Amino acid sequence: MSATKRIRAIDYPRSGVVEVLDQRLLPLRERTITCRCGEEVAIAIEEMALRGAPLIGVAAAMGIAVEMDQAKWDSAQQRHACFTTICSRMLQTRPTAVNLAWAVERMRQAYGKLQEKSDVEMLAGLQTEARQIMEEDWQMNLAMGEHGASLIKDGDVVLTHCNTGSLATGGHGTALGVIRSAVQGGKKIRVLVDETRPYLQGARLTSWELQQEGIEATLIADSMAAHCMQKGMVNMVIVGADRIAMNGDVANKIGTYNLSILAKEHQIPFYVAAPSSTIDPNCIAGSDIPIEERAEEEITHYHGHRVAPKGIPVYNPAFDVTPAANIAAIITERQILLPPLGSALAKLMQEIRECHSI
Amino acid sequence: MSATKRIRAIDYPRSGVVEVLDQRLLPLRERTITCRCGEEVAIAIEEMALRGAPLIGVAAAMGIAVEMDQAKWDSAQQRHACFTTICSRMLQTRPTAVNLAWAVERMRQAYGKLQEKSDVEMLAGLQTEARQIMEEDWQMNLAMGEHGASLIKDGDVVLTHCNTGSLATGGHGTALGVIRSAVQGGKKIRVLVDETRPYLQGARLTSWELQQEGIEATLIADSMAAHCMQKGMVNMVIVGADRIAMNGDVANKIGTYNLSILAKEHQIPFYVAAPSSTIDPNCIAGSDIPIEERAEEEITHYHGHRVAPKGIPVYNPAFDVTPAANIAAIITERQILLPPLGSALAKLMQEIRECHSI
Repeated sequence: MSATKRIRAIDYPRSGVVEVLDQRLLPLRERTITCRCGEEVAIAIEEMALRGAPLIGVAAAMGIAVEMDQAKWDSAQQRHACFTTICSRMLQTRPTAVNLAWAVERMRQAYGKLQEKSDVEMLAGLQTEARQIMEEDWQMNLAMGEHGASLIKDGDVVLTHCNTGSLATGGHGTALGVIRSAVQGGKKIRVLVDETRPYLQGARLTSWELQQEGIEATLIADSMAAHCMQKGMVNMVIVGADRIAMNGDVANKIGTYNLSILAKEHQIPFYVAAPSSTIDPNCIAGSDIPIEERAEEEITHYHGHRVAPKGIPVYNPAFDVTPAANIAAIITERQILLPPLGSALAKLMQEIRECHSI
Repeated sequence: MSATKRIRAIDYPRSGVVEVLDQRLLPLRERTITCRCGEEVAIAIEEMALRGAPLIGVAAAMGIAVEMDQAKWDSAQQRHACFTTICSRMLQTRPTAVNLAWAVERMRQAYGKLQEKSDVEMLAGLQTEARQIMEEDWQMNLAMGEHGASLIKDGDVVLTHCNTGSLATGGHGTALGVIRSAVQGGKKIRVLVDETRPYLQGARLTSWELQQEGIEATLIADSMAAHCMQKGMVNMVIVGADRIAMNGDVANKIGTYNLSILAKEHQIPFYVAAPSSTIDPNCIAGSDIPIEERAEEEITHYHGHRVAPKGIPVYNPAFDVTPAANIAAIITERQILLPPLGSALAKLMQEIRECHSI
């Protein structure tokens, strides 16, 4: 794959078909799952065939559209019930990422506008909206990358966590998109990749994406980050976000809060890159964000092999909350938000509201 | 296995035989490797069939003795050459733990005193010395446990990293020994066990040991420690040590430095438990301690399954250095050392020297 080919984590090539790149098999195999109804997309989200907050949003939108593609109804009422049911189903798939709720809400608004239309027009409208969400996400990430790249100097070593690239978004990526943009802008950058236990998104996905792009990367275990910082091997940390509270607290992949403390200790800037759809206007502080707990097997097993003794209790929170105080800046598609993050976020959301009401 | 049965990670049941519990197969299988010469013990250390700083010291001593058991010589000179060679070989197995050098030095001193003796007496003397090192380590750990248990309150949740139990020592354990002693003293304690990537000593070994003893334990990924501390789930951190510098800096399993920063951030006491043989009088500061780097496959593979893409560079330091400033106390078999650790260590080493010279 060349440096410029766009990696597509999901596609909606024609009515009735959503194709999902099964990330569980990466980097060993590139297999596509074909989803022909909303439930199949919901399962792909729940079972993490795809993941990443922005991509989950895209997938939910496509899942809603593809469900409507194949559903049958006899009345406008039935059609409406069908739409409502699939929206609720999508919202139940993962609790932490807010982009999911945001994307479902966009589909609801689109459907609202299409309600008086014929079935054919309504279906075409929903398909367009779902594809539009993906394209907009890609464009937003390109803009975010432009902004964020200004923070990276030639020769910097950037530490990142989880996967925030094309495999987590509509394309390009958030934190990884910033790195991509800096490299595409001619800067020579090295990336330290946290393997990101328990799901190994760093080892499996970020390593793979960076390799595809020919960006120099070194893989480490999560617990090695402090040692690398102590040795002067890290110039900055950039991570993504699953939900941003209005006070600037950020929920992201478990281990992010850890990294933010280490960065503070070593006086290394800690940046968050996320589209404005990740900001939850209804969430005042990080403590309001629900934290998903996932299955024990993610920690006790590898590839079906047990590594921990049978019966050992496990705690497996998928996300943690980084307080605003630990964050040097939040990079969005619109601008870079600097502390105090609470007022910067309030101002940004006000601008977005004004923009929509024009 | 009952709560009181002593788990033996190594044994030297008779002349010519050292038995090593193969920790690589735990917790799934309990297999013993029979070593009939020093080289076989050296390989067991290198390939981590056994690990843990104090246990490596015990194994090196037994490896030297068992090499002499089976070696042939025609002259005192040849016997001496044989002894010197196996000592050098043992010293090359792992670079970071100082107990290894300490144990080899003890065997050298024992051999020095036995040099005029017959072969039979010399061999018996070396066997006794090697077994004595193990028994002393066990006794030291019981004493360390007594001291350390005074720091733990009934109902505390203790977070620990790596394995520092019977599987890492001559028995009972260092950090895990402190936990064991507190439980044996009637305190109700819960343990949060870091899985300890990349080698998973926490998931595989500490979980297993705690289960054997019926001590309540919960397994987490290393990157979850900060989140657990933020949630108020942790009252203290206790870890072991591979080498302690005279200024109080501590080399220990990679991820320890990470934890020390997190504990400081959350105002949670961070304790190190280690026998005085872990203190290196020749090491002024942590920056003098050599840090072993291990094979890439420990990070890129699980049970022979590749998880990271082929060709991705890996950095795999096995240890890190925690500065003295992050340590609330060092628990030894003699006493609990409190800050300033530099002067406390100097005083302890002076007492040990005086004790030996009496």
